[in-house]
Amino acid sequence: MNAEIIAVGSELLTPDRQDTNSLFLTAELNKIGIEVVRKTIVGDERALLLEAFRDALNRVPIILSSGGLGPTEDDLTRETVAELLGRKLIRDDAVVRTIEARFRSFGRQMTENNLRQAMVPEGAELLTNPRGTAPGLWLEEGDQVIALLPGPPRELKPLFLEQVLPRLQRRAPAGRMFHREFRVTGLGESHVDHLAGPIYTRYPEVQTTVLASPGEVQIHLRMWSADADHAAKTLAAIQRALDLALAERIFSRDGSSLESVVAHELLQHNATIAAAESCTGGLLAERLTTIPGSSAYFLGSVVCYSNELKTAWAGVPSELITAKGAVSPEVAVALAQGIRRAVGSTLGVGITGIAGPGGGSEEKPVGTVHIAVASPTGVRERAVRFIGDRDMVRMQASQAALDMVRLYFLYNGQAPPVRP
Amino acid sequence: MNAEIIAVGSELLTPDRQDTNSLFLTAELNKIGIEVVRKTIVGDERALLLEAFRDALNRVPIILSSGGLGPTEDDLTRETVAELLGRKLIRDDAVVRTIEARFRSFGRQMTENNLRQAMVPEGAELLTNPRGTAPGLWLEEGDQVIALLPGPPRELKPLFLEQVLPRLQRRAPAGRMFHREFRVTGLGESHVDHLAGPIYTRYPEVQTTVLASPGEVQIHLRMWSADADHAAKTLAAIQRALDLALAERIFSRDGSSLESVVAHELLQHNATIAAAESCTGGLLAERLTTIPGSSAYFLGSVVCYSNELKTAWAGVPSELITAKGAVSPEVAVALAQGIRRAVGSTLGVGITGIAGPGGGSEEKPVGTVHIAVASPTGVRERAVRFIGDRDMVRMQASQAALDMVRLYFLYNGQAPPVRP
Repeated sequence: MNAEIIAVGSELLTPDRQDTNSLFLTAELNKIGIEVVRKTIVGDERALLLEAFRDALNRVPIILSSGGLGPTEDDLTRETVAELLGRKLIRDDAVVRTIEARFRSFGRQMTENNLRQAMVPEGAELLTNPRGTAPGLWLEEGDQVIALLPGPPRELKPLFLEQVLPRLQRRAPAGRMFHREFRVTGLGESHVDHLAGPIYTRYPEVQTTVLASPGEVQIHLRMWSADADHAAKTLAAIQRALDLALAERIFSRDGSSLESVVAHELLQHNATIAAAESCTGGLLAERLTTIPGSSAYFLGSVVCYSNELKTAWAGVPSELITAKGAVSPEVAVALAQGIRRAVGSTLGVGITGIAGPGGGSEEKPVGTVHIAVASPTGVRERAVRFIGDRDMVRMQASQAALDMVRLYFLYNGQAPPVRP
Repeated sequence: MNAEIIAVGSELLTPDRQDTNSLFLTAELNKIGIEVVRKTIVGDERALLLEAFRDALNRVPIILSSGGLGPTEDDLTRETVAELLGRKLIRDDAVVRTIEARFRSFGRQMTENNLRQAMVPEGAELLTNPRGTAPGLWLEEGDQVIALLPGPPRELKPLFLEQVLPRLQRRAPAGRMFHREFRVTGLGESHVDHLAGPIYTRYPEVQTTVLASPGEVQIHLRMWSADADHAAKTLAAIQRALDLALAERIFSRDGSSLESVVAHELLQHNATIAAAESCTGGLLAERLTTIPGSSAYFLGSVVCYSNELKTAWAGVPSELITAKGAVSPEVAVALAQGIRRAVGSTLGVGITGIAGPGGGSEEKPVGTVHIAVASPTGVRERAVRFIGDRDMVRMQASQAALDMVRLYFLYNGQAPPVRP
């Protein structure tokens, strides 16, 4: 069963605003077996809007729109769809009273233009919107459905879940979308695809999307099926094959972020962590503390850009910095060991590198990063050369550091096995 | 002059991938006076693609598409548009050689399916793509233009700028889009709109978009005009009025981020900065160091979640923490003064608060944050209660801290004037 989404609003045709409602709507529609086959973004113009809805009605049984239900002259969705379907607009006094009450609750008087939002096309069902003034509308035309939803995501999302989804579920096909997400770090996109491609291409009924961001590759598997058992078996077979091919490079099989996977390991092992960062400038700490309850495993960290602070806070001997350079394996190790000692944490992470764009040399080009993890079983150090701009280098470095912590727990504090 | 953008690709109709090329294309088109009136996102299906291009040809003189030019069976844009325009596809041997050379440069053999990318519709101009295998195509049909661009942003952007933009410029109208962006912090979206609305609504020829994110409101002004002088005067008049209404709440008039504005002030004043963060977990340091060359003003900072580290690193007396609580104005001040002393920086910032979701109490609810800035002229402290989830509280707190640093320079280290 196919649907189209029409996002209404001239601001969605500017360079700084984008329709994001359709991502939410697509995810929810897919879950109940409805596929989105087209998205259209149109401005607040009667003729263009009319054409968009008319064309969609010629193609699909389900049309969802967002936006254009507000009180201003620019809000034309309601009127245009009523005109297209040849329905009269009738003022709904209950809606008027709801809008008036809403304004009163803010200590304000309802202005006249808000009455537009109480105009309901004949035969439409109201979708009440407790988080805004404009109600949504559900219109049936023969076997087809048009749902008009408000534009603001905080109004659209609950309204859709509470009132549109149940109505659509009654019409939805037996099948639904099954989805799996794997996340990989430490391998580039083409490397992942080289390893995973021969697997997923064997399953033409599964739609695979490979998405890359700095330091991370996501593999999304999607499968439409009316047979939940068949879908589960198929996806499990792909998962087994991916597990063999990508092994410890897969850090998540449920879409969790790397920081939340690491947080989980730290909590599970009653371990604490501290960091001494240079080139990542606090990004590692920021990511470790983005998780609610992070104070259970995160005690503190330092960002030591200057050599003096590397010595003061992480006890890196100034002679070592002079001898080896601030960006060196030895200083990374000293940072990790020093911050672990200073904080008294189970693990200490040290990061030093050149994020760029300046500061590189032939010997130590931009992107050179040394990362060390000190632990009760010793210290491990990794030298990496990342590609990309400053933000990408910093992101990849924080990702690599988190991954070293993950591997520490995966291998029980021992060195990872060497692959043949 | 109007254009439509068609984004081609079934992956753009999944919940995890979004067309972003159109934002770039819109910004560039607007600059030369071309307005985007519709965006369509369609999957890799012949009939739907054909309809999308046919309908667009019935509406606008300029059509840009992205995607569907690759070597696989799913890549149908080239064939479909050739069919729609009744043009034969002819293999271009020069393109074949370019693709073969590209494969050789990677040490690989070109596979047969890549030949699809060398098929060119009769009369089309090739848009060479040095960053990918598939060339873009420029097709003219009467007065209308269709430009087929590759999907990957890193291929599309330079190809568009180098080869499509100059061609479009020759057809573009005399007018163009004039754009101004103001950024405001310390006021909510509705507050900004209350102050700015009466100004910008007086200028119906200027399209205004107000965008809010945690701790920041952006005001975008857009104006189409063939008269650059008139546009400059109109936008300058709005700017003067906004400057009066929003005064020091405007931190940027050119779209700069708050961290880059603060970085600029620090550099201008030869000042250095250090921070002791608690609830923001390193976010302030991360933002201060995101700017290239930040080591000129940023020496270091600490994230001290635990009370012991507040004492060890920022010299906060443990009795003070016991007496006042870790989240208190006194501890924020002690953090700011302590880190300034420890690092020897011009400015010291202290942040302590409750980011949530746990840890709140009736007296100190989630969102309570104390921020202090210590300087050669003394110390200033601010207590704020932010609304929102953990990420939003952290973002707003880092924004408020940066803003206090900005105001320190704006008022030459003196207290901001009290408004009547």
